[in-house]
Amino acid sequence: MKQKILKLLEDVYQNNISPEDALEEFKFLPFQNIIHTKIDTHRSIRTELPEVIFGKNKSFEEIRSIIENFLKKDEQVLVTKLQKYKAEKIKKIYNSAKYYPKSKVLIINEKEKNLIGDVAVISAGTSDISVAEEAYLTLKFFGSKSEIISDVGIAGLHRLLEYKDSIYRANIIVAVAGMEGALPSVIAGIFGKPIVAVPTSVGYGTNFNGVTPLLSMLNSCAPGIAVVNIDNGFGAGVYAHLINIAICRN
Amino acid sequence: MKQKILKLLEDVYQNNISPEDALEEFKFLPFQNIIHTKIDTHRSIRTELPEVIFGKNKSFEEIRSIIENFLKKDEQVLVTKLQKYKAEKIKKIYNSAKYYPKSKVLIINEKEKNLIGDVAVISAGTSDISVAEEAYLTLKFFGSKSEIISDVGIAGLHRLLEYKDSIYRANIIVAVAGMEGALPSVIAGIFGKPIVAVPTSVGYGTNFNGVTPLLSMLNSCAPGIAVVNIDNGFGAGVYAHLINIAICRN
Amino acid sequence: MKQKILKLLEDVYQNNISPEDALEEFKFLPFQNIIHTKIDTHRSIRTELPEVIFGKNKSFEEIRSIIENFLKKDEQVLVTKLQKYKAEKIKKIYNSAKYYPKSKVLIINEKEKNLIGDVAVISAGTSDISVAEEAYLTLKFFGSKSEIISDVGIAGLHRLLEYKDSIYRANIIVAVAGMEGALPSVIAGIFGKPIVAVPTSVGYGTNFNGVTPLLSMLNSCAPGIAVVNIDNGFGAGVYAHLINIAICRN
Amino acid sequence: MKQKILKLLEDVYQNNISPEDALEEFKFLPFQNIIHTKIDTHRSIRTELPEVIFGKNKSFEEIRSIIENFLKKDEQVLVTKLQKYKAEKIKKIYNSAKYYPKSKVLIINEKEKNLIGDVAVISAGTSDISVAEEAYLTLKFFGSKSEIISDVGIAGLHRLLEYKDSIYRANIIVAVAGMEGALPSVIAGIFGKPIVAVPTSVGYGTNFNGVTPLLSMLNSCAPGIAVVNIDNGFGAGVYAHLINIAICRN
Amino acid sequence: MKQKILKLLEDVYQNNISPEDALEEFKFLPFQNIIHTKIDTHRSIRTELPEVIFGKNKSFEEIRSIIENFLKKDEQVLVTKLQKYKAEKIKKIYNSAKYYPKSKVLIINEKEKNLIGDVAVISAGTSDISVAEEAYLTLKFFGSKSEIISDVGIAGLHRLLEYKDSIYRANIIVAVAGMEGALPSVIAGIFGKPIVAVPTSVGYGTNFNGVTPLLSMLNSCAPGIAVVNIDNGFGAGVYAHLINIAICRN
Amino acid sequence: MKQKILKLLEDVYQNNISPEDALEEFKFLPFQNIIHTKIDTHRSIRTELPEVIFGKNKSFEEIRSIIENFLKKDEQVLVTKLQKYKAEKIKKIYNSAKYYPKSKVLIINEKEKNLIGDVAVISAGTSDISVAEEAYLTLKFFGSKSEIISDVGIAGLHRLLEYKDSIYRANIIVAVAGMEGALPSVIAGIFGKPIVAVPTSVGYGTNFNGVTPLLSMLNSCAPGIAVVNIDNGFGAGVYAHLINIAICRN
Amino acid sequence: MKQKILKLLEDVYQNNISPEDALEEFKFLPFQNIIHTKIDTHRSIRTELPEVIFGKNKSFEEIRSIIENFLKKDEQVLVTKLQKYKAEKIKKIYNSAKYYPKSKVLIINEKEKNLIGDVAVISAGTSDISVAEEAYLTLKFFGSKSEIISDVGIAGLHRLLEYKDSIYRANIIVAVAGMEGALPSVIAGIFGKPIVAVPTSVGYGTNFNGVTPLLSMLNSCAPGIAVVNIDNGFGAGVYAHLINIAICRN
Amino acid sequence: MKQKILKLLEDVYQNNISPEDALEEFKFLPFQNIIHTKIDTHRSIRTELPEVIFGKNKSFEEIRSIIENFLKKDEQVLVTKLQKYKAEKIKKIYNSAKYYPKSKVLIINEKEKNLIGDVAVISAGTSDISVAEEAYLTLKFFGSKSEIISDVGIAGLHRLLEYKDSIYRANIIVAVAGMEGALPSVIAGIFGKPIVAVPTSVGYGTNFNGVTPLLSMLNSCAPGIAVVNIDNGFGAGVYAHLINIAICRN
Repeated sequence: MKQKILKLLEDVYQNNISPEDALEEFKFLPFQNIIHTKIDTHRSIRTELPEVIFGKNKSFEEIRSIIENFLKKDEQVLVTKLQKYKAEKIKKIYNSAKYYPKSKVLIINEKEKNLIGDVAVISAGTSDISVAEEAYLTLKFFGSKSEIISDVGIAGLHRLLEYKDSIYRANIIVAVAGMEGALPSVIAGIFGKPIVAVPTSVGYGTNFNGVTPLLSMLNSCAPGIAVVNIDNGFGAGVYAHLINIAICRN
Repeated sequence: MKQKILKLLEDVYQNNISPEDALEEFKFLPFQNIIHTKIDTHRSIRTELPEVIFGKNKSFEEIRSIIENFLKKDEQVLVTKLQKYKAEKIKKIYNSAKYYPKSKVLIINEKEKNLIGDVAVISAGTSDISVAEEAYLTLKFFGSKSEIISDVGIAGLHRLLEYKDSIYRANIIVAVAGMEGALPSVIAGIFGKPIVAVPTSVGYGTNFNGVTPLLSMLNSCAPGIAVVNIDNGFGAGVYAHLINIAICRN
Repeated sequence: MKQKILKLLEDVYQNNISPEDALEEFKFLPFQNIIHTKIDTHRSIRTELPEVIFGKNKSFEEIRSIIENFLKKDEQVLVTKLQKYKAEKIKKIYNSAKYYPKSKVLIINEKEKNLIGDVAVISAGTSDISVAEEAYLTLKFFGSKSEIISDVGIAGLHRLLEYKDSIYRANIIVAVAGMEGALPSVIAGIFGKPIVAVPTSVGYGTNFNGVTPLLSMLNSCAPGIAVVNIDNGFGAGVYAHLINIAICRN
Repeated sequence: MKQKILKLLEDVYQNNISPEDALEEFKFLPFQNIIHTKIDTHRSIRTELPEVIFGKNKSFEEIRSIIENFLKKDEQVLVTKLQKYKAEKIKKIYNSAKYYPKSKVLIINEKEKNLIGDVAVISAGTSDISVAEEAYLTLKFFGSKSEIISDVGIAGLHRLLEYKDSIYRANIIVAVAGMEGALPSVIAGIFGKPIVAVPTSVGYGTNFNGVTPLLSMLNSCAPGIAVVNIDNGFGAGVYAHLINIAICRN
Repeated sequence: MKQKILKLLEDVYQNNISPEDALEEFKFLPFQNIIHTKIDTHRSIRTELPEVIFGKNKSFEEIRSIIENFLKKDEQVLVTKLQKYKAEKIKKIYNSAKYYPKSKVLIINEKEKNLIGDVAVISAGTSDISVAEEAYLTLKFFGSKSEIISDVGIAGLHRLLEYKDSIYRANIIVAVAGMEGALPSVIAGIFGKPIVAVPTSVGYGTNFNGVTPLLSMLNSCAPGIAVVNIDNGFGAGVYAHLINIAICRN
Repeated sequence: MKQKILKLLEDVYQNNISPEDALEEFKFLPFQNIIHTKIDTHRSIRTELPEVIFGKNKSFEEIRSIIENFLKKDEQVLVTKLQKYKAEKIKKIYNSAKYYPKSKVLIINEKEKNLIGDVAVISAGTSDISVAEEAYLTLKFFGSKSEIISDVGIAGLHRLLEYKDSIYRANIIVAVAGMEGALPSVIAGIFGKPIVAVPTSVGYGTNFNGVTPLLSMLNSCAPGIAVVNIDNGFGAGVYAHLINIAICRN
Repeated sequence: MKQKILKLLEDVYQNNISPEDALEEFKFLPFQNIIHTKIDTHRSIRTELPEVIFGKNKSFEEIRSIIENFLKKDEQVLVTKLQKYKAEKIKKIYNSAKYYPKSKVLIINEKEKNLIGDVAVISAGTSDISVAEEAYLTLKFFGSKSEIISDVGIAGLHRLLEYKDSIYRANIIVAVAGMEGALPSVIAGIFGKPIVAVPTSVGYGTNFNGVTPLLSMLNSCAPGIAVVNIDNGFGAGVYAHLINIAICRN
Repeated sequence: MKQKILKLLEDVYQNNISPEDALEEFKFLPFQNIIHTKIDTHRSIRTELPEVIFGKNKSFEEIRSIIENFLKKDEQVLVTKLQKYKAEKIKKIYNSAKYYPKSKVLIINEKEKNLIGDVAVISAGTSDISVAEEAYLTLKFFGSKSEIISDVGIAGLHRLLEYKDSIYRANIIVAVAGMEGALPSVIAGIFGKPIVAVPTSVGYGTNFNGVTPLLSMLNSCAPGIAVVNIDNGFGAGVYAHLINIAICRN
């Protein structure tokens, strides 16, 4: 885009084109401008951000075609919420594809990175680990160092202490919980660190597929908690990554 | 009722009335039967249970007339959720009436009781104390000894310990919390005692007037929690009372 | 933990370690302290409480590995909400495993117990019996004597009377109902006993998978009702067990 | 309308107008046709149905002007859900206006009627009586004989029996209840009569202004219950009236 | 029961048993009393009411065993909401069983009846016919004459007229509609007859499985509409039957 | 109908029938009148509107029979939301049937049309394209020219510009979006054109199957947005078609 | 903006500034570009669009200051949802201000316009007229000719016909309804014209402040209905205006 | 606490107390331990964190008494969501109290701070500014430098650019929006920075007091958004502060 505008300005400068005609050319550039300006401004960050596909509602054919485009440019690809049967088909095409059945994450062409910073991904119960893994894989894929601390529910609070060093060391915490979703409140109360809370759909009855932990997290008395969508391990991972690198780079 | 049936049977025995005619008399007794059988069976409990009026949706006139009937029989009266302006009018009529503006409880003709057992009423925040007081006054009114432990939220957990003796000594715990409602989960996790949890409407936004703590309590990972309606300090008090006296009387 | 602290204190006493260094050691003990204090305090109860696994959202592999750990310590294991196909796989590994398909409960290594106290588990309709069975098996597993009284809906109230002795004898009642969930209200109205009410997801349309009976139970006019999560037979069983043994032990 | 069509046909018959031109005239009559056909068909009923105004969202000016039009035709007028301050203003204008503050019903120019049939209006608690009164006044206004039986909640079931004769005699029952709304279920279970159930907004917390009794009534196990909108005493009254006169007239 | 009480009274009359001992015998009869009194009182109705099983949440085994009990007493049996695979199994056992796959109704041992009265069952769209059929089969099974008028949606209002005679002749109307549920409003507006409205779960998106037509029907401006649960064709059938026979018998 | 009325009027004109008897004939014509009047009035539009079947809740048999009736009259048929297995069966019967698996639309006997006007169908993400295709096929089927512009989410706004000519040229825009549903707001903010917004059920967690984008669209700050039901590509297509032809025809 | 860019290009053309430096100037213009491009493109429309303020959540001071700015530029101002007490204060300052208490609309400095096109604003009940008036005033303010047709509920359908000419003549219809919101379905069924439906919060109980008519409208079987937010007469007015002028201008 | 433990250990070291007796002393220290350990660990942060009171549900008396305690220790006090009438009373007692009526924040005894870092608080509309101000005052009170950028809705996106430098410079962004809540999505799409999104209750109808923007924000396609409770400007302020100082301090 920059090149395109510069070229145009040079044409004007050399009087190859009149200002009025040049104006016509400019008329519909604004959007590209914005987009590309953004890319320029954030180039340093963007170069690390590999491509991501939300796999759940896309057909195998759609996903395959998007992947192909990315791989042509030798990009790394992360597919989230990808059902197993689609993943199997994709793995048959791309040998390098790695699928994580618990978190339903598929990664292709992942490149060696120098992981930086420190993020603690803490999950309340065994069943929440799938979402925690999604956050963890996202962080790693984007270049942030992180660690999963699992099974730290109301009945396993002592495990928080076993990992106290990891937690105190972390720049930011991702806390994953279903059921009544009290884990982030308790961590915030004890450690006083900013937390990205992820409600999960683990539970039954009035859990309402994660609405209860979501509400619980939004209403926490303990300050320092912000929340992402139910089961959104990916979103929490990206958010924690952005904070983590901001702290590292300063 | 018993007298009425016995009298009828004696009339049959003395052939004052035929079996067929007596049958007619029996035809519609069943309901009274049930009610009175119940009173007989539970007499020991019932004698302690003074009369209760749910004041919220009743007019001053309705409440005054119900109170008058009870006082004629020299009964003690508890009115719950009574707005201040109605309470003031009632206090002008009955000098012995005592009104608690925080919990909106009004009590008339309360009698000296030998309070028994031990119930701990724990509330999360200053704003929850109104509901805790309703539970406390109900317990006292029905004859159970209890103690209020307040301001024990996620940010005041250390206060739980200051009162550890009261809590360990309690036969049952009433835990009152608004916001995200995590208090009962934490108490259940630490003390392992049965808890009657009362969600309160304290909070804002997605608290939804107490729905969030209600859901949170219903979904607790920690076993030993049962829940009553939002702001239902009275119901929690009665429930705790029933458990408390069952334990004491055994 | 106690041993660990005592050992440390003795080292200080014998001047093997300075108070300052000992302080460092103490710095992060608090949580273990809490947890272990709790275990000490409640030892008598805890020894009866066998291990419980919430089976629904866990994979077969996860469940098998947790069971294995428990069995190594010769503990009894209760798995709730376990889908049939996982149960079949587990039964092939552990011969002693017993699976109850109605309530989806699996029990391994259950030990002979001297069942104490008395709990009545009452269910409204044939379809609610799966949840009632979960409560019953939980009570038995934890050591409480209980009895299931089934098919006592609005249209079968006369059956309540056939079992009147069981109900009057019970220390606490578990009442299980779907549809409009009126059963606990009616029992509370007639028997005046504390009830742990369990709404079930039996129904259709505006039953909303159990939300209607849940709301109905929370709003009952009859005092003496506290509620657990929809279909939470296990939670009701544990709650009733805690009350039951508290009454027995007094 | 009939006259208008007949006139037109006669004009055709006498060849004052051609069939083609008459067709044009017919083109847009259908709606009037429908409306007037309906009035003709149901004349016997309609003559009893006085005019009704839903007062809640209308301004004093709007209501006054509608009333005026009705009174010009010497019709009887029923205004429902009319706030007190508007009622007072209207009473100053129309001396014959009678206002019932509990049910917020205002009636003007009511005429002496020969009340027929038999409807029982049963309400669960003192606070539900306002809605019961709305149903009762509607029935009376439309010409059905009815009786209010109040305070028959779960804790006052014995009162049902005191009024057993009224209930057995009734052609249809209107059952009004807030809280958990179990009353219609219980009545249907005992008396086996068709019931028009009216949930009321009496309650608090998870009563959700009447949603809980509404859901409870819709999900009743007992057959013979149909439901109207929350607090819709008027609707229940009209419905019961239509059934009542259908039974009487047969 | 009557016999039992009469026998007891005769024993008292003949002094075979003392009044005091007889009293003991009476102590727990109340419930049976109620139930049997009810049956006596309503004998005329009850003899027509065959047995009904809600099939949805029951296992094949449970259903088979209930059917067996009924057939022993030569009763007719209606099973509602019965999934096809269970129905097929039952048909293999009972040759007389007839299954209606659209409405998921199974009927066994239905007896020839003299159908009385007149009920119109009107459905809005082709997809609502399954619920309409459930109402129709219920009415027929209980002894009411009825007729299905289908496909009368907003786009098929002219069909209402084709069936105007059936509709005017009907004692009561069952109106079945999904989508926005406007049908009952329109019928009530045109015919002025009492309607039992049945919302169906036909639709998608914000239809919310029938909640939208349910709300629409509850809020109708047109008087004379009462509502049953979503998809509850059976409940509407029973309700219409009770009204229909009340009108016929008068 | 017109013929029928005209014939009747001519009979009156020729005195073959008396006005009174003719009146009887007219008595129940009103509904047919309305319907047919409507068809007459809108004939020009109606001739383009082929027949449409909502396929989701209908059985294969029902759909086949409706299609057969339409084809007899040589009409074009559009079936929406048709599951694949039903479509396959139908394609075996009607060779000309064309099925679009993404949008689940089936079209039979579509006729060559002169597409008029201009509608832009814009979709936010790859997964929303199924609903966009339903709108597109509907527009084409009814005779409106349209174009799909896809993958224009928050992260692909620059694509809006690539298609700026199509958008400025369009008479009306159909905007399809799931997730948070911000697309219509952004388009309305930039282009200032009237938009028919279609929320889709694409998303997870608190997307609530499309409720979130629906609410988002209804609350847009940008004027010029009206909304149809979730996933209702067909409804949006018809709406846009009606506007489009109104503009073209003026 | 155009001038600014042109000036810059001319400077480049005359070599007053180098292409590289000009590029810097362009870097952050994109947004202004977009906004102003839009204004240019739509100039003809924009000149008619006076300024609008959403008054509900703004303080008197905020509103006054915004108005002042607009009046300096001699613009016309429309304030919606403005509470009466704020309106009175504003009228004291601006003599030309006109306030419509029913619709809570305030208009200042309205200019004489040549109203074009034809829009029918139809409302279901007397109480819905406030929202209809908001739509009507908005249409007039923006320059569209429109007419209000009120009191056309289910019970007043014959009035639709009295206004048939207005309705057939209209380019688009705004249909306003509370309660069950069936009006747009009925109009769409009869007239086959595109409708902008506005649900109102008129009603009580399960009307849920307009959610019921909203859902009803979204689920209409009749095609040709799109919906705006509850009580959003303004939004419907703008939408209808955009369609109306598009049709007029073609 | 540290002193207390050290003193105890020294006593053990000097054999003033036996290890066993010391153990008793330790038995119930854990909670204080945790709390104080936390304070120690975070001392650097905590010293800046003045005291905060949630004012909404507390009575004037409760607030006054809490303030008094804080002021005794010469602490700064922030009261949020404080109604005006309570604020006025408090200002009469404490001259230094400053009340911000828009955001309902009251601050007493605020001390001069060296504000660090950079936070951008962006609000969508004039009406959202109250919540933005709460966030801003919180940030300032806790020691973070911040700037409010207001009125940047969908219709004011160009203002984003005027403030582009502030936004690019910010360590983290607080984005405040009511209505459809699209602002955070748009900012995230353009600037790629982490955002703490605050939904506000500004809007009407289906805005549902802020639920719509909340859902919209949770479902954003643009990564880098985490959400706090509706209207929770305070929570957003604390969260942004924690991130901001973490970045500054690194």
